[in-house]
Amino acid sequence: MSAVESTRTLAEDLAGAGEVITDPDVLEAYRRDQAAPGLLRAGVPAALVRPTTTAQVQAAVRAAAAHGVPVVPRGAGSGLSGGANALDGCVVVSLERMDRIVELDAAGLTATVQPGVVNAALGTAAAAEGLWYAPDPASREFSTIGGNIATNAGGLCCVKYGVTRDALLTCEVVLADGRAVRVGHRTRKGVAGYDLAGLVCGSEGTLGIVTEATLRLLPAQPRASTLAATFSSLVEAGEAVAAIVRRVRPSMLELLDRATLQAVQELEPLGYEDDVEAVLFARSDAGPEAGPREIALMQELCDAAGATLSVVSDDPEEGRMITAARQLAYPALERKGTTLLDDVAVPLPQVPALLAGVEAIAVEHDVLIGTFGHAGDGNMHPTVVYDHRDDDQVRRARAAFDAIVALALSLGGTVSGEHGVGLLKTDHLDAELGDARALGRAIKDAWDPAGTMNPGKAI
Amino acid sequence: MSAVESTRTLAEDLAGAGEVITDPDVLEAYRRDQAAPGLLRAGVPAALVRPTTTAQVQAAVRAAAAHGVPVVPRGAGSGLSGGANALDGCVVVSLERMDRIVELDAAGLTATVQPGVVNAALGTAAAAEGLWYAPDPASREFSTIGGNIATNAGGLCCVKYGVTRDALLTCEVVLADGRAVRVGHRTRKGVAGYDLAGLVCGSEGTLGIVTEATLRLLPAQPRASTLAATFSSLVEAGEAVAAIVRRVRPSMLELLDRATLQAVQELEPLGYEDDVEAVLFARSDAGPEAGPREIALMQELCDAAGATLSVVSDDPEEGRMITAARQLAYPALERKGTTLLDDVAVPLPQVPALLAGVEAIAVEHDVLIGTFGHAGDGNMHPTVVYDHRDDDQVRRARAAFDAIVALALSLGGTVSGEHGVGLLKTDHLDAELGDARALGRAIKDAWDPAGTMNPGKAI
Repeated sequence: MSAVESTRTLAEDLAGAGEVITDPDVLEAYRRDQAAPGLLRAGVPAALVRPTTTAQVQAAVRAAAAHGVPVVPRGAGSGLSGGANALDGCVVVSLERMDRIVELDAAGLTATVQPGVVNAALGTAAAAEGLWYAPDPASREFSTIGGNIATNAGGLCCVKYGVTRDALLTCEVVLADGRAVRVGHRTRKGVAGYDLAGLVCGSEGTLGIVTEATLRLLPAQPRASTLAATFSSLVEAGEAVAAIVRRVRPSMLELLDRATLQAVQELEPLGYEDDVEAVLFARSDAGPEAGPREIALMQELCDAAGATLSVVSDDPEEGRMITAARQLAYPALERKGTTLLDDVAVPLPQVPALLAGVEAIAVEHDVLIGTFGHAGDGNMHPTVVYDHRDDDQVRRARAAFDAIVALALSLGGTVSGEHGVGLLKTDHLDAELGDARALGRAIKDAWDPAGTMNPGKAI
Repeated sequence: MSAVESTRTLAEDLAGAGEVITDPDVLEAYRRDQAAPGLLRAGVPAALVRPTTTAQVQAAVRAAAAHGVPVVPRGAGSGLSGGANALDGCVVVSLERMDRIVELDAAGLTATVQPGVVNAALGTAAAAEGLWYAPDPASREFSTIGGNIATNAGGLCCVKYGVTRDALLTCEVVLADGRAVRVGHRTRKGVAGYDLAGLVCGSEGTLGIVTEATLRLLPAQPRASTLAATFSSLVEAGEAVAAIVRRVRPSMLELLDRATLQAVQELEPLGYEDDVEAVLFARSDAGPEAGPREIALMQELCDAAGATLSVVSDDPEEGRMITAARQLAYPALERKGTTLLDDVAVPLPQVPALLAGVEAIAVEHDVLIGTFGHAGDGNMHPTVVYDHRDDDQVRRARAAFDAIVALALSLGGTVSGEHGVGLLKTDHLDAELGDARALGRAIKDAWDPAGTMNPGKAI
C-alpha cells in the first residue's frame, strides 16, 4: 500500500470525527505551538480533525489507533514547550470547537466545560455569577482550559491559589483505545481510588485527551492592593521575597531583572533608575482593610531588605500602572529577537543564586537573557533572546538555555515549573527524575500500550 | 517446607529491617486500625518490623517480596477504613520509629520529615519558626504524616487550605521491588514528569511505602473569629452553607445534626434548644480587621437563611467555647455504642438532601445515626451507633452504612471524602469509579506486579 492510499484510508476512517482536513495549507498552521521557533521538530500531520463532541474525539482516536498513527491533541496552540507539535503522519485533534461551557453551577461552585473553552471566557462566565476561576496563566486571553489541564498551567495568582491541578475536580478522558472514562470526583474532596485526575493533569495528552472538565470556582476575588519595589542587588530582592512569603500570602509576587527592565524601558520609558538590578511586584487581595495592611507590611519588608524605592496603591487602575513593567516584560524581550523562554523553578532560598547564575550564563555564552517570573513560587522565566537566522547565535542560545536548566537542577530545582516538558525538556528529564521517569513510563505503557497518544512528549 | 520453617526464614531475612517482632501478644496490637471494630477482617501477621531508616524499610519489603508475603505499612494505626489492617502471614511495617523531622527550612517554607512524625509535632515545630502546617485531621494529635499521606487526609481547615496532597511537594517511596525512589518536586511548582507524588498520596500503601516527605508550610495562621448558628431546618442550614461559600472563604465550616447534638448534650448540657435541627460552626482567619468582618457577613447570611440563633466571637478562647459541640460530636456518639463512621462527600448543593436522606435511613433501619462534618466541602460523617455484641444491630448498622454510601453516590457524591477506602469501601468502588477503577488497577499492576504492597486495599 502506498503512503497516499494509506492516508486516504485514514481520512475515510476519520469520517466520524467531525470536520476532517487534509489541505496542506491548513495543516501547516497546525504543525507547531509557540515553543522555541526553529529549534524543535514539527512533523507533517496526515490529517487534522476539529471535533465538537466526545464521540467524535473517540472516533478520531480509534481511527488513528487502527492505522497505527500518533494522535496529537491541541488546544489554542499557545503552549511553550512543543507539546502540541505535530508528528509525521499523525492525526492532530484540535479541540478548538469544543468550546462550550456545559454548566456553571453557582451553588456548587463548579464549572463544567469542554476543553476548548478559553480560560478568560470561563473567567467571564464565573464573574457573571459573582465567582472566580483562579488559575491565570499569562496566556489566559487565548489559551484553553484543555491546554491548561494538559500542562497543569500556573500563573500569577497561583502563589496563593494553586495551579490548574488544584482547580480540577473531575474530567472525562478519551484513552488510547477510544474509551471515554471519567476520572476524579465531582465533589470538592474525594479519595476513592487513585488520584487519576491529578495524574492526567500535566500529562500533556500522553495519557489521553480531556474532553470535558469540572473545575472548582471561588468567590469573586476582592480588589487588590499593589506594591512595586526596586532593588540595587539581586540578593536584597531575594531577601525581600523570602521575608514576604514567610509573613503573608501575597496573591502575586513577581520579579524582573535588569536585562528585562532595560528591554521594557526601550519599549516604553517608565522612569526606572539605571542602578536597578531587580523590581518586585506584589499584590494582596485580602480585602478592603486587610489588603492595604498586608501590602504595607510587604512594603516595610522590602524597605528593610534594602529597596531603593517602593510604591503602593490600593487603587486597581493605579496598581496596573505601577506593575506595567511586568506586563511588558515578555513583549519587550520578544521585540528584541527570537525568544527561547525557559521555565525553571528552584526552592525559594535559591532564587537569588538562580538569578545571579543566569547573569553569569548570559556573559559566558554572550547572549541576552532577560529574567522575570513568579518569584514567590521560585518559578522564573529566563528568556534567551537571539537571531534565529544566525546559526552561531542559535547555537549559543541553545547552550545558554541548557546551562540554565542545569543550573536550576544543581540548585535543587525543576526543569519546568508550569510550561511543561513537551519536546523542549525531554533531554533533561533523566537528570531531574532519575528512577521516577521509569515509573511514569510504566503508567504510560499501561494506559497506552501502542504508544499512540502524543508520543515522545512530556515523559 | 512447613509454615513454621517458612516463617522462621522470613524472620531471618528480615534481619536488615531493624527491630523484628514475632511475639503474638505484640502482633495482636498491630492487627487493625480504628475502623469499624468487628466488621472488617484483620489477619495475623507473620512479623512486625519497626524500622528507623529507609534502608531498613527496603530490607523489609525485599524480604517480604522474596517470601511472596504481603507488606502492610502502618503509621499510628488511627485510620478509619481498615487500610492498615493486617493480612494473614504479612509483614507489618510500622513507621512509628521513623519520627524525625529531618529539616525545617523556614526560608524555603518546607519541612522534610520521616513518615512517623505526628501531625501535631510538625505543627509545633513549624510554629516555633512562625510557620504553619495546614492539614489538620481530627486525629492530628496522634496520626502520623505518613498515614496522612497514605489516606490524603483532610481536616477542618481544608475547606480553605486544601488537603494533604496540596501540602505534599516530594516524597521518597520504597516500591514493591525494594527500590527507594523520589517522586514529586522540592519546588513549590513543578510539572516535569507525571504527578507521581499526587498519585502516591492517597494510595494507602498499595503503590509503596513513603519513607520521607517534604511538605509545604505557610505563614502562621492569623487568629480566628468564630461563628455558631442554630437552625430549625436542615434545608435552611444547607442554604446558609451555600450562601457562605459563595461569598467568602471560611477557614472552617462545620455542621452537626440533631442526633449528634442530642448525644453531645447527654454528655455535656450546652443549652441548645430542643427544636435545633442543625448547628453550623464557622471560622474566619482573614486577620484582625477582615476576620471579624467576614464572620459578621457569615452571621448575616445565617440569619438571612433562617438561623434561630447565632453568636460570634473574635476571642479564640470564646471561639472554642461556642464550638464545643463540634469537638464533642464524635466522642459523644462513641459513648453511646460502637460506631461505624462514614465519610461520604457530595456536591455542595446536595448537602441538605444528604442529611435528610440519612435521617430517613436511620428510621428505616432503626439505628441511631449522628451526622457531623465538613459542610463547606460537602464532606459529612454520618456515624452509625450500634451494639457490636448484638448480631441484629450489627446487621442493621451495616445495612444503614451501605444505604448512606448508596445515597451519596445517587447524589453525585463519593464513597470517601478523606478517610480512604481501605477495606471498608472497596465493595462500593465499582459503583463510583466505573472504568476508572481498571485504570487505577493498571497502575498498581505496573508498579507492583506481584501484588505484595497492601493488597486488597484502596482500589
